[in-house]
Amino acid sequence: VARDVNKGRLEAFSDGVLAVAITLLVLDLHVSASGTDSLAHQLREEWPAFSAYVISFFVIGVIWVNHHALFVMATRVDRALQFYNLLLLFWVSTIPFTTAALADYIKDGDTGDVRMAVLLYGVSNEGMAISFFLILRHLLRRELLPRPVPPADGRKALIRFAFGMIVYPVITVVGLFSPVAMYVGYLGTIIYYVVDQTPLVADEPVEVDAIDGSDDLTDSA
Amino acid sequence: VARDVNKGRLEAFSDGVLAVAITLLVLDLHVSASGTDSLAHQLREEWPAFSAYVISFFVIGVIWVNHHALFVMATRVDRALQFYNLLLLFWVSTIPFTTAALADYIKDGDTGDVRMAVLLYGVSNEGMAISFFLILRHLLRRELLPRPVPPADGRKALIRFAFGMIVYPVITVVGLFSPVAMYVGYLGTIIYYVVDQTPLVADEPVEVDAIDGSDDLTDSA
Amino acid sequence: VARDVNKGRLEAFSDGVLAVAITLLVLDLHVSASGTDSLAHQLREEWPAFSAYVISFFVIGVIWVNHHALFVMATRVDRALQFYNLLLLFWVSTIPFTTAALADYIKDGDTGDVRMAVLLYGVSNEGMAISFFLILRHLLRRELLPRPVPPADGRKALIRFAFGMIVYPVITVVGLFSPVAMYVGYLGTIIYYVVDQTPLVADEPVEVDAIDGSDDLTDSA
Amino acid sequence: VARDVNKGRLEAFSDGVLAVAITLLVLDLHVSASGTDSLAHQLREEWPAFSAYVISFFVIGVIWVNHHALFVMATRVDRALQFYNLLLLFWVSTIPFTTAALADYIKDGDTGDVRMAVLLYGVSNEGMAISFFLILRHLLRRELLPRPVPPADGRKALIRFAFGMIVYPVITVVGLFSPVAMYVGYLGTIIYYVVDQTPLVADEPVEVDAIDGSDDLTDSA
Repeated sequence: VARDVNKGRLEAFSDGVLAVAITLLVLDLHVSASGTDSLAHQLREEWPAFSAYVISFFVIGVIWVNHHALFVMATRVDRALQFYNLLLLFWVSTIPFTTAALADYIKDGDTGDVRMAVLLYGVSNEGMAISFFLILRHLLRRELLPRPVPPADGRKALIRFAFGMIVYPVITVVGLFSPVAMYVGYLGTIIYYVVDQTPLVADEPVEVDAIDGSDDLTDSA
Repeated sequence: VARDVNKGRLEAFSDGVLAVAITLLVLDLHVSASGTDSLAHQLREEWPAFSAYVISFFVIGVIWVNHHALFVMATRVDRALQFYNLLLLFWVSTIPFTTAALADYIKDGDTGDVRMAVLLYGVSNEGMAISFFLILRHLLRRELLPRPVPPADGRKALIRFAFGMIVYPVITVVGLFSPVAMYVGYLGTIIYYVVDQTPLVADEPVEVDAIDGSDDLTDSA
Repeated sequence: VARDVNKGRLEAFSDGVLAVAITLLVLDLHVSASGTDSLAHQLREEWPAFSAYVISFFVIGVIWVNHHALFVMATRVDRALQFYNLLLLFWVSTIPFTTAALADYIKDGDTGDVRMAVLLYGVSNEGMAISFFLILRHLLRRELLPRPVPPADGRKALIRFAFGMIVYPVITVVGLFSPVAMYVGYLGTIIYYVVDQTPLVADEPVEVDAIDGSDDLTDSA
Repeated sequence: VARDVNKGRLEAFSDGVLAVAITLLVLDLHVSASGTDSLAHQLREEWPAFSAYVISFFVIGVIWVNHHALFVMATRVDRALQFYNLLLLFWVSTIPFTTAALADYIKDGDTGDVRMAVLLYGVSNEGMAISFFLILRHLLRRELLPRPVPPADGRKALIRFAFGMIVYPVITVVGLFSPVAMYVGYLGTIIYYVVDQTPLVADEPVEVDAIDGSDDLTDSA
C-alpha cells in the first residue's frame, strides 16, 4: 500500500504540473478591442500564436499520455526516478515561454530571430525527449517494472524512445528554413503518437487496457 | 487495480486542467485605482466582463459535473479515449481566451467585432459539445461500460448529448443579434444541467448515488 | 467503491481550484527595478498588498481545512451537493480579484473607493460563508453522513456555521471605517479556526483523527 | 480508510500548490519581438532571470521530494499538522514573487537593491526551512509515525532539518556580496538533496522503497 501511495503522489504532482503548463499556454493568446484593427483581422494576424498554441497543447498532451503509459507499468518509484521526473517537468514548464517566443518572432518575421526562437523551442522538446529516455532506462536498469524485461525488448523500447531524441533536432533544423514545415513536423509526431498503439514493453497482459493494440482511433472517430 | 489507477490518472489530469481553466478566468477581471473613474463606476462599466466571468465559470463547472457523470460509469479507459478527452480539454482551455475577447468587445460595442467575438465563444462551446458526444459514443461502441447498454438506451443518451451540439449554435445565432439574450441562453443551459437529474444510461443501480434522480435541488435550496 | 471515487473526484477538483486560487494571489505582488524608488521603499509602500496577500492566503487555507473537515464526514455525494460545492468554489475564485482591488485602493487612499473595495472583499467572504452553510445543511437534510445526527447536534453545527455568515458582514462594516481594523478582524477569524478544535458533529469516533479535540497547537508550536 | 483519505487530501492540496507555484515561475521569463534587441541578445541579457528560474524550479522540486518523504511516513494527520503544512505552502507560494524580484534587481544592478532582493529571497527559503522543521517536530512529538521513534534517532533527524535552517541564512549572507556565489550555494543544496539518500528516520523497513539508501543516482545517470 505504501508503495502505491508513493507512486500515486509522483503521478499527482506530475499531473498538476502538466495540467498547469498546458492551461497556461492560453495566456499567450491576445486580442484587443482598444486598437483600430477588427477582431477578424487580428485573428488572421495572430495565426502564428494560434498554431503554436494548438501544437504545444497537443505536445504536452502527448507527454501526459506517454508519462501515463510509462508509470502505469512501474511497480516501484525510487528517489532517482523522482529527480529524472523533475527534469522532465522542468522542460515541460518551459514550453509556455518558448511557445510564446516562437509565436511572437514568427509574427515579427526577422529571419535571424525566428531561427533563434525555433532553436529555443527545439531545446524544450529535446530536453523532454532526453528526460523520457532517462526515465525509461532507469525503469529498465533498476528493475522497477513488475517482471524482468527480456533484454531484447528493453533495447527495442529504448531505441523507440531514442528515436524521439533524434526526430526533434531534425524538425528543428527544418524549422530554421521554414517554420510552417516545422509546424507540420510537430503535427506529424503528435499524430504518430495518437495512432501508434505499440506497447512500450511487450507481453504485459496486466496493463492490456492501457496499451491496447486493438484500438483503432480513425475507425471509431 | 491497474485499471482503476489508469482511469484515476485520466480523471486527475482532467480535474487539474478544468480547475486551472476555471480559476484563470479571474485574470480577466480588472479594476484600477490609477485612473479617475471611481471603483463603483468601473464595476458598472465592467458588467460584460463580470457576466461573462459568471457564465464561463458555471459553463466549465457543468462540464466538470458531466465529465464526472460520464467517467464514473466507465470501467475501462483505452488510448483512443485519452485522445478524445484531450480534445475536450483543448476546447476547455480556450474558454479563458474566448471569454476575455467576448467581454472586451461587448464593452467596446462595435457590432461587427461583437458578432465575431460571439462566434469565437460559440466555437469553444461547440467544440466541447462535440468532444463530449465523441467520448460518449466511444464509451458505448467500445463497451467500456460495466455492462452492455441496450441499443435503445444508448441511442437515447447519444441523442441527449447531440442535443447539446445543436443548442450552442442556436444560442450563438441569437447572440449575433443580442449578446444579452445569448447570456440568458447560456444561463438557461446551465440551469437545465443543475435541475436535470436524468441518468445518462438507465438501469445502473451501482452508480445510483452519482445520478440520483430523487434529489430536488430547488426544494433543498 | 464507486461512491468513494465519486467523493474523491469532488475533493480533487475542489483541491485543484483552491490550490490554483491560493497560488494566483502571488500575481498581485509587484516590485519593479525600472523606477527610481528603492526596493526597500517599494516594499514599505506595498504594505496593503502584502497584508492583503497574507490574509487572503490564510482565508483560502482555512476554507480548505473546513472543506476537508466537512467532506471527510460525508459518506455520499449527490448532484445537488456538487452544485453547492461549485457555488463555494465560485466565491473562492473571486478572491484573487477582490484581494487585488482591496490592496490597490487602500494604497491609493480615496475613502469612497476604499469603502467600495472593502464591500467587494466582504461579498467574496460572505458568499463563501453562505455556501458552506448550504453544504452543511444539505449534508444534514439528505442524510449523507455516516449515521443520523441528533437534531440538537445538527442545529448546533448549523448555528456555528451561521455564525460565520454574521461575522463577515460585521468585519466588513468595521472595514468601512478602518481597513486596518478589518485586517485585524480577518486575522482573528483565521486564528479562531486554527485554535478551535470542536468537532462539527459530536460523537463521531470514526473520524477522531480528523477532528481530534485533544490537539493543542499553541502547546506544540 | 478514513485516515488515508484524510492524509491523501492534505497531500493532494499540497501537490496542487507546489505544482502551480513551480509552473507559475515561467511567467517571469520574457522576451519581446517589438524592441530592437535581437532575441539572442535578449537571452544573454536575461541570464539572471533564467538562472533564478532554474534554481527556484529545483528549490520547489526538492521541497516536493522532501514533503513526500516526510508524509509517506506519517500514519495520521491532525489539525495542527494541517496548519504547519499551510505555513510551508505560504512560503512556497511567495517564491514566484521573490524570484522575480531577485532576477529583476540583479539585472538592474544597483547594489543596495540587489542586497534587499537577496534578503527577500532568503526569507522565502528560510520560512520554508523553519516550516519543515516544525512539521517534523510535530510528527515526532505527536507520535504520528507508524511506531515510536527512538529519541536519539528523532534528535538526529531534527538536527538534519535544523541544518537547513542554518544553511539558508549563510547562503543569503554570501549573496549580499556576490549573487553568483549565492546561486552556486543554492545549486549546492539542491545537489546535496539529489545525492543524499539517508533515511530521515532509520529502521523503517515499511517505507524502504521511498527512502531507499541503495540507490545511486550518479551511477545510473
